Amino acid sequence: MKKLTRRSFNSLATKGILGSALMANMPLANALTTKQNGKKLGIALVGLGSYSTYQLAPSLQETSHCYLAGIVTGTKEKEAVWSKKYNIPSKNIYNYENFDSIVNNKDIDVVYVVLPNSMHADFCIRAAKAGKHVICEKPMAVSVLECDAIIKACNENNVKLSVGYRMQSDPYTNEVKKYVREKTFGDVLFVSSDAGYISKGNPNQWRLDKSLSGGGALMNMGVYSIQTSIYGTGQNPIAVSAQEFSTRPDYFKDTDETITAQFKFENGAVAHMMTSHNANGNQLKCHCSNGWFELEPAHSYGPISGTTSNGDILKFPHKRQQALQMDDFAKHILMGTKNVAPGEMGKRDMIIVEAIYKSIAEGGKEQLLSLGNMGIVS
Amino acid sequence: MKKLTRRSFNSLATKGILGSALMANMPLANALTTKQNGKKLGIALVGLGSYSTYQLAPSLQETSHCYLAGIVTGTKEKEAVWSKKYNIPSKNIYNYENFDSIVNNKDIDVVYVVLPNSMHADFCIRAAKAGKHVICEKPMAVSVLECDAIIKACNENNVKLSVGYRMQSDPYTNEVKKYVREKTFGDVLFVSSDAGYISKGNPNQWRLDKSLSGGGALMNMGVYSIQTSIYGTGQNPIAVSAQEFSTRPDYFKDTDETITAQFKFENGAVAHMMTSHNANGNQLKCHCSNGWFELEPAHSYGPISGTTSNGDILKFPHKRQQALQMDDFAKHILMGTKNVAPGEMGKRDMIIVEAIYKSIAEGGKEQLLSLGNMGIVS
Repeated sequence: MKKLTRRSFNSLATKGILGSALMANMPLANALTTKQNGKKLGIALVGLGSYSTYQLAPSLQETSHCYLAGIVTGTKEKEAVWSKKYNIPSKNIYNYENFDSIVNNKDIDVVYVVLPNSMHADFCIRAAKAGKHVICEKPMAVSVLECDAIIKACNENNVKLSVGYRMQSDPYTNEVKKYVREKTFGDVLFVSSDAGYISKGNPNQWRLDKSLSGGGALMNMGVYSIQTSIYGTGQNPIAVSAQEFSTRPDYFKDTDETITAQFKFENGAVAHMMTSHNANGNQLKCHCSNGWFELEPAHSYGPISGTTSNGDILKFPHKRQQALQMDDFAKHILMGTKNVAPGEMGKRDMIIVEAIYKSIAEGGKEQLLSLGNMGIVS
Repeated sequence: MKKLTRRSFNSLATKGILGSALMANMPLANALTTKQNGKKLGIALVGLGSYSTYQLAPSLQETSHCYLAGIVTGTKEKEAVWSKKYNIPSKNIYNYENFDSIVNNKDIDVVYVVLPNSMHADFCIRAAKAGKHVICEKPMAVSVLECDAIIKACNENNVKLSVGYRMQSDPYTNEVKKYVREKTFGDVLFVSSDAGYISKGNPNQWRLDKSLSGGGALMNMGVYSIQTSIYGTGQNPIAVSAQEFSTRPDYFKDTDETITAQFKFENGAVAHMMTSHNANGNQLKCHCSNGWFELEPAHSYGPISGTTSNGDILKFPHKRQQALQMDDFAKHILMGTKNVAPGEMGKRDMIIVEAIYKSIAEGGKEQLLSLGNMGIVS
């Protein structure tokens, strides 16, 4: 845990936002005065594409500890529409040029960067420098180096950082994590996961443009399977190998269409995954020494569906995952609860993404990984 | 189709067993007099291990076109037990030394070789030389060369050959094959399959002895996933890559424990599979352009269970797969119906098995395959 200086402590204390490092030594009631007295954290969404429009903004109508306070958009017409729909004052509306002046806006506590992947690092770092907590949509960035830069900026500016891994706040995912932790079905021996959809839309969409996306199916959907492989085993892989498949090169001009990968874990578990922009897949199945459990769908917007070898059918009340996710982060900031999707988790996944691309470049050769417990949140 | 000589024709005509090559030129009623007038083909089981004991012999009590006529065993005590239980006359009981004299036994039409894998070729060839039709349990042999030798011996002796692929006679499997053929859910884009169990038994069992099994999980269970990948797409793969995982080397001394493999198909479909002697798996899932279908379990003794994206739950009357399988082969012999699991299918799968082992030896390098339609039965 990074040690806070007095200056950064004062800065945090002023805002009433205290890291969990300090929490242990302070009475809770004292530490959380400002924000916890009914006041919610103000979130600004950066980038008003379909994910912000149809998922994040509606979710922010359901959150308890944060609310939609501001927007950052490059599309002038969206300003009025959003302002009206969500009652956002004009002083909380920014564009990409004047974004840095958000430093002076006390309404905004958290900046959620929902831009194309290659823009994540830039805007996350700018948000951190403006003293705002940061949520970075997945994948965290387009390289490990960029992840490092984001983490460094957040540390230096004493702001919290999380990755937009909504599944980490999903109750079905957390039930699976509990099975793994408590060995409900014994040791996990084999995990099979897939995450894909059939991309048929505009061939000029940013996801198919490597300069914006950093990669194709792996960057977009593959990250889900990397995540499921890890929370399906409770461990980081110690080695990975991978293969790429291409059948529609005219459409997938410079991004990966389908990738398979295999993971080796220290305790002997094995996982394989498939991710694609040309085939559907939405499953996590864990075969254990004494049974199995499965999520299918495993990572759609929900409700997720789960079954086990005991005949159990998982059933949890449905709430928008993004609402749970943003509230989890707000509670982390406000109350020092754990960060369920810290920057280290996003960086770890990017290390794996890079290893997968390297394995493909080397004809499927196994890549050793030295991740330790990096990004594991139990 | 191999042309029959007069001598072989006479030999077949005497027994009343006529190949489909001749069928086309002869009135059906005339060709099938002896065997089809209510008489069933006599089958001799070679090797009375658990598969013969608990699957094949009971199945032969349910067959319509063949029956348990004889046994070949190296265990003297089994002779009396089986003779009594199944009313087998002593003249139809052989051991491995006097097996070749089966040539003179008119009760035996078909020899089913159920020995450890490395003994398949020897006994299949001896059976063929004795003029008996041959069922060779899967995997067909321990090398492609041995498969060639079996096929050659059967051709030269004008006997029919099939591999013990019971799933090819299973109604659920055939429903899946129909989906693929008729594009019920559109084009198959991605197939995920696994086939494994946790081996905990006697470490001296023949399956764990490479000199008898020729290999571990891949030889035993992997063949199911190779088969499902092929009937799940309706095509042979054009390339394969593979990886091996070992976590219990003390138990799996010289056979593979867990293997993952990836298949590329000419039409762009992708498949990945996992097979293991250290993890469970029993699934075939096919993701298509307009939906999906799934078998799980996909290859246990049944009943198999199947579901589709239409909400259909497949339901077929249950009959022992081995009874269906042996009747299919008997009908092929008696009536010239198609051979649903010909020797070429077993050889093709062994080509793939060898390519998988080669890929593993070469660090996961992709192996190109030139199978054409070899072994595809539509």
